Amino acid sequence: MKNFLSANDAGNIDDLVHTALHFKTNPFSNSSLGKGKRIGLLFLNPSMRTRLSTQIAAQNLGMESIVFNASQEGWAFEFEEGAVMNGTTAEHIKDAAPILGKYFDILGIRTFPTLKDRESDYAEKVLHQFVKYCGIPVISLESATLHPLQSLTDIITISSHLPVENKTKPKVLLTWAPHVKALPQCVANSFAQWVNAWGHANFVITNPAGYDLDEKFTSGAEIIHNQDEALKDADFVYVKNWSSYQDYGKIINVDDNWLLDNKKLETTNDAKVMHCLPVRRNVELSDEILDGGNSIITEEAGNRVWAAQAVIQEILRNV
Amino acid sequence: MKNFLSANDAGNIDDLVHTALHFKTNPFSNSSLGKGKRIGLLFLNPSMRTRLSTQIAAQNLGMESIVFNASQEGWAFEFEEGAVMNGTTAEHIKDAAPILGKYFDILGIRTFPTLKDRESDYAEKVLHQFVKYCGIPVISLESATLHPLQSLTDIITISSHLPVENKTKPKVLLTWAPHVKALPQCVANSFAQWVNAWGHANFVITNPAGYDLDEKFTSGAEIIHNQDEALKDADFVYVKNWSSYQDYGKIINVDDNWLLDNKKLETTNDAKVMHCLPVRRNVELSDEILDGGNSIITEEAGNRVWAAQAVIQEILRNV
Amino acid sequence: MKNFLSANDAGNIDDLVHTALHFKTNPFSNSSLGKGKRIGLLFLNPSMRTRLSTQIAAQNLGMESIVFNASQEGWAFEFEEGAVMNGTTAEHIKDAAPILGKYFDILGIRTFPTLKDRESDYAEKVLHQFVKYCGIPVISLESATLHPLQSLTDIITISSHLPVENKTKPKVLLTWAPHVKALPQCVANSFAQWVNAWGHANFVITNPAGYDLDEKFTSGAEIIHNQDEALKDADFVYVKNWSSYQDYGKIINVDDNWLLDNKKLETTNDAKVMHCLPVRRNVELSDEILDGGNSIITEEAGNRVWAAQAVIQEILRNV
Repeated sequence: MKNFLSANDAGNIDDLVHTALHFKTNPFSNSSLGKGKRIGLLFLNPSMRTRLSTQIAAQNLGMESIVFNASQEGWAFEFEEGAVMNGTTAEHIKDAAPILGKYFDILGIRTFPTLKDRESDYAEKVLHQFVKYCGIPVISLESATLHPLQSLTDIITISSHLPVENKTKPKVLLTWAPHVKALPQCVANSFAQWVNAWGHANFVITNPAGYDLDEKFTSGAEIIHNQDEALKDADFVYVKNWSSYQDYGKIINVDDNWLLDNKKLETTNDAKVMHCLPVRRNVELSDEILDGGNSIITEEAGNRVWAAQAVIQEILRNV
Repeated sequence: MKNFLSANDAGNIDDLVHTALHFKTNPFSNSSLGKGKRIGLLFLNPSMRTRLSTQIAAQNLGMESIVFNASQEGWAFEFEEGAVMNGTTAEHIKDAAPILGKYFDILGIRTFPTLKDRESDYAEKVLHQFVKYCGIPVISLESATLHPLQSLTDIITISSHLPVENKTKPKVLLTWAPHVKALPQCVANSFAQWVNAWGHANFVITNPAGYDLDEKFTSGAEIIHNQDEALKDADFVYVKNWSSYQDYGKIINVDDNWLLDNKKLETTNDAKVMHCLPVRRNVELSDEILDGGNSIITEEAGNRVWAAQAVIQEILRNV
Repeated sequence: MKNFLSANDAGNIDDLVHTALHFKTNPFSNSSLGKGKRIGLLFLNPSMRTRLSTQIAAQNLGMESIVFNASQEGWAFEFEEGAVMNGTTAEHIKDAAPILGKYFDILGIRTFPTLKDRESDYAEKVLHQFVKYCGIPVISLESATLHPLQSLTDIITISSHLPVENKTKPKVLLTWAPHVKALPQCVANSFAQWVNAWGHANFVITNPAGYDLDEKFTSGAEIIHNQDEALKDADFVYVKNWSSYQDYGKIINVDDNWLLDNKKLETTNDAKVMHCLPVRRNVELSDEILDGGNSIITEEAGNRVWAAQAVIQEILRNV
């Protein structure tokens, strides 16, 4: 593994899952691999779970990690080729990235979409410039359109809850949920991409009309605009809001009630409920689900560490 | 020791003091105890001494520490049960705390009071929700009403300055001091609670009328509203401002001069002067005291490390 | 070496360069020297390269490092002797510095000039108070008027590019460049001080009228106000903007074009181009230079680590 930017970089996903679950029971089983190596974690946008879990994963492998919150620590990067930098941006990515490549062995980067310029966001302009100019392996800590560490975590979590003798594929449902802010599509895109690449699920996506995701990621999944119908017999329900991809970055008013509660779970196969967090309680998901026995959300967030540790190990082996 | 939230969690205070003073001369004497363990330090409010001293204490015990400044790193927590989160709070404590419990072995938390809702502040609503939901030992890095690491530090510092043959109890005076801002009562409450629990002092508190602290913490101390009278024969003078507990969170105008200077020290028993810092020079304490031989304030702040190290060691032994 | 605040603290610069270049090929060759030692990195102003490179240098020597961003983490320091602190400053340097001296073995500090009060800035009031009151060795991470870690880096970088059989001194040119903001003079002052102290260059400075630097640092260099003339036969061109020293902190309008591009390099001796970064592309330096073969700027920034590591090692040997 050279970079970790999407499911396309994952190699054999089952192997990654297996490695992650091994680390879950043996966190320090490879604690000298990273000795003398250093990972830089550059956040252009804030983070809690991703920052903490990646730092911990690196430490478990014996690496040093250094966090740099660019937005808070006062660094506005320029990404435009040929820019005359007489405005507010202080440093061009072409100058900053190679330095980070000199200071670190691996670079983790979090960027967010503009939610205004779809073409630019979906070209992953910012992420790809870091990859192009830093000269070291890059791990996406969430990018404009994808969140691969979250999705690997999700596959790990689903895998942990499959029966040992798993003869039929589980029904995995990704459902849109309401939110008060316009959020990126990245977690949903990425989940779709990974479940498709994993291949061990009957994968269904449900969202209101106007919220269909980019087919580049969803192709292979069944898309249903009626949530009640989609929930039927689901084994896993992944809840997530996203803003519109078609009417890019917009919130489209929705008449139906898309908030998931226990009533809606009744037609499922006693489904496990998942969410990447942070979650808006009683907007996306009801208290009764979050505080009840069907939620595996805390376990899911805990698995972030093992996903990151599996990925960093793969990259360290090639550094 | 399971949690460290107040003097009630301290067990035998003399033993803790003894342990801390041992670490002061042997910082690395137990440096492998924390190997493979991790402490998360979550600051809902800014900190300098507490953050640095706790990080250092954890490092001395061989632990990894990770700091998370929630207010700066953009995380507004929701604490209300049943909240419909369609406003500005991004994540409920019920969802965030268990994750921190999965990532860390010990959680340190700093919270501040509202200074508006006394009942809520004195119920330590925020701190107790972290304790309830995180599932791991919690160390208070200052809470709405108490600051136990500071108070243990203060007892350590006083202990260091007692004569070896200590036949009579020293007179320890806590005196209110002026300030330009409305400050919490937590340092004063906590000092009172700890000196009372410690039991080796004649303990007096002096403050202007209207500034009496909660009897829950001060009970056992003599309270005198005349500073001059209170200072007489004091061996230790602990200087601290706090806002009113009765007229909750307010600054009440005070006619007398409560600023401590050398003139006022004349009637003491050449008292050692203490303060938790930061101090407003020439508002709370005069330059001449801060720069003179009676101040043991720098030593006191240095002892923060050893207090934290003693506490973390006690908790690690039970993790 | 006790402190590292300017070229005056460097001792034999050639020896420091030699040590740094040794670390460049053997980063971990002295990785137990700093065991059990701790460096505090206090930033009163933001930093990327300095923060990262100094942390890495300390880690390479086996030290723990703790970063404290004072401006973000909410601490406004008071520097005036005798101040009655009833305003916005929360803590006097006289109280804060000694505590840092208790917590750390070495203190790194970044401060910036006011660019308003030249006398105060050039007295390095802030830095010197830290030195005076903290009681431990201090490393300047950039101060009001100097940036010695950058300048040592620059000498290391120039040294690396000298022919082995170096019979004649290289011509080193420091040229002023345009910028949109009023920047400190510190990088330029410091470069001048170090090149003069190093003594192995024919040193020329070119800047528009009104931008002459303090003679305290430049004395010994030839100063030319015509950039074209100055560039002739240069072996190294160091590009940097600074605000006026004479009309202190001001930006003086300049008629000529001082932006360095390939055309201007033609009369040089195929000069290597240097810059401390961050650089405003197409304002200070053209894209064609930054992206071309004459730039050694990325290498220069990478050398920050080895400069810091050589300095920290020297100080650790005396701690």
